[in-house]
Amino acid sequence: MASMVFSDCSTSATARLGPFQKRISGQAFQLRTLVSFPWRPTNRFLVHSTSSRFRSSSTIASAMSTDTAAKIIDGKSVAKQIRDEIAGDIVKLKNATGIVPGLAVILVGSRKDSQTYVRNKKKACEAVGIMSYEANLPEDSTEEEVIKSITGFNNDPSVHGILVQLPLPRHMNEENILNSVGIEKDVDGFHPLNIGRLSMQGRDPLFVPCTPKGCMELLHRYGVEIKGKRAVVIGRSNIVGMPAALLLQRENATVSIVHSYTKNPEEITRQADIVISAVGVANLVRGSWIKPGAVVIDVGINPVDDAESPKGYRLVGDVCYEEACKVASAITPVPGGVGPMTIAMLLSNTLSSAKRIHNFQ
Amino acid sequence: MASMVFSDCSTSATARLGPFQKRISGQAFQLRTLVSFPWRPTNRFLVHSTSSRFRSSSTIASAMSTDTAAKIIDGKSVAKQIRDEIAGDIVKLKNATGIVPGLAVILVGSRKDSQTYVRNKKKACEAVGIMSYEANLPEDSTEEEVIKSITGFNNDPSVHGILVQLPLPRHMNEENILNSVGIEKDVDGFHPLNIGRLSMQGRDPLFVPCTPKGCMELLHRYGVEIKGKRAVVIGRSNIVGMPAALLLQRENATVSIVHSYTKNPEEITRQADIVISAVGVANLVRGSWIKPGAVVIDVGINPVDDAESPKGYRLVGDVCYEEACKVASAITPVPGGVGPMTIAMLLSNTLSSAKRIHNFQ
Repeated sequence: MASMVFSDCSTSATARLGPFQKRISGQAFQLRTLVSFPWRPTNRFLVHSTSSRFRSSSTIASAMSTDTAAKIIDGKSVAKQIRDEIAGDIVKLKNATGIVPGLAVILVGSRKDSQTYVRNKKKACEAVGIMSYEANLPEDSTEEEVIKSITGFNNDPSVHGILVQLPLPRHMNEENILNSVGIEKDVDGFHPLNIGRLSMQGRDPLFVPCTPKGCMELLHRYGVEIKGKRAVVIGRSNIVGMPAALLLQRENATVSIVHSYTKNPEEITRQADIVISAVGVANLVRGSWIKPGAVVIDVGINPVDDAESPKGYRLVGDVCYEEACKVASAITPVPGGVGPMTIAMLLSNTLSSAKRIHNFQ
Repeated sequence: MASMVFSDCSTSATARLGPFQKRISGQAFQLRTLVSFPWRPTNRFLVHSTSSRFRSSSTIASAMSTDTAAKIIDGKSVAKQIRDEIAGDIVKLKNATGIVPGLAVILVGSRKDSQTYVRNKKKACEAVGIMSYEANLPEDSTEEEVIKSITGFNNDPSVHGILVQLPLPRHMNEENILNSVGIEKDVDGFHPLNIGRLSMQGRDPLFVPCTPKGCMELLHRYGVEIKGKRAVVIGRSNIVGMPAALLLQRENATVSIVHSYTKNPEEITRQADIVISAVGVANLVRGSWIKPGAVVIDVGINPVDDAESPKGYRLVGDVCYEEACKVASAITPVPGGVGPMTIAMLLSNTLSSAKRIHNFQ
């Protein structure tokens, strides 16, 4: 194991002591439910930076002005471009068929963060012309009630995508509930049948999970060659790491998955031409882990204490950005990298679903 | 790419010119339908050996008597042990419940090799006390007729496992036919829902594909530690390579998949503590590819010309055995390694299915 000594990427200051959460797919998960990661340093709540350079939306511009070799992969701008393309396609679909794509979100309980994510998804839908539908169920709903609500959307022809906002209340079986989403409307792409098809040669999933799809889209739009390249995916979660590895392999990269039991993650990662990190550990991946010239996609969005921030914390990636951007040839910032792509891919999956259901090319 | 110069593993003699087939799961596939492998040397039908040492069932004994460091992983003997265990379990199941496990095999057409495989499966079933059922359909059957036959077995409570003998006639859609096998009776484990569950943390497949399950069983029974080890799987077929990689990862190995687009397979393979090769290219993996002390599981069963053999050919693995057994700490021979395990795992899956359906622990 690489030692957990942090450079100027993350020095001094005190800890953010809230639950260590990972925001993926616009959803808040307890990190522990995603990955069990002994790499997390014992002083993991002491991961900070005195620098305020990466705090705001000015990240990209300011990062570009530093002495870095890496091209900044600007997810914010690519996501905007994709949303514009989607909006254009929706107009065409509507003009030709009268169909308007619809996305239904099921929210159980009243978690504030979940409410925020749902609101953001709704806004993003509206902005591109997707109708959004919402089912709000009380925290003490039964599993059957949630499934009944999903079944209603499964049978509703105006709904083309169904998304269950996670996490669900603890008394519910997440697997049962997610499996009840009709495979043709599983825009999150989490159904095991979709993941199975993603794993198999000669089969195609109906939907690709949004965050890893966003990572691939960034690689494509930045012209990164994948075929024949060594790729390392750090983390093997069902929603990011594993599908990202499968996607890279489908494009003929040679893929290794590094995870909590990997003995020499630094050495293996350093062999990669493409690194996708999705573990939710702030600044885990140091500059020394990166092969000079590699392309780095950082999925992690980790809150670390920052007294200078009005919120008292700021968000950093899994990758020690300050170090990595001196070694990599291209890198995603956090925020402004993969984050904005996730919701753009959700919109894209919803549009594709509407097109497929109505057989519109 | 490593150059395709063959050592004493494979010298002189002339070529076996029949179709280059791979026998996996007791089934004959055109290799090309499994993997498209540019590694196959242009003179791939000129891969031979003058040695007759590895020809017969005396393989293991004679290999052990040579100057090798590697322990021979004796699949033949492990498979016998497993079949004996299964036979014992079937007696217990029958005594307690009156239930006898049943396996149905659907054979379409009259390929001689397929008929042989089906006959062998039937024999293996009989030997352990599994009832075998067979549907023989003519070559010119329609897809619907085959699916109707499968549906009959899906609904037959005396059948606990259904296996469609591959290859199917070309006018049929293999995916449609395989997908019609009820997931609870998919003892081959090829259904995308099974593969999806195999790919996902927190999910369990109902069945694990027989050949990769056999590889894992060999590792387990020989006490090979998997957790935290580097593993390389060579080949990414749906029926062996990919599920083998998923199984290794489920047991917390750090897995890399090497395939036809991998630029430096030798270098990557040499990092592995465990190598599983399943590409169907005779003697592809040379001694120099193996890390000293690694464990090598060779799934390949490749016919190469041998004038000294009564059949005119003999079977060799993907791994250049003579070289590898001097470097590895343990290795499977071909034949007598993974081969016998596949059918043992099919029997094991059929028994598990009967136990699950009848809720017998």
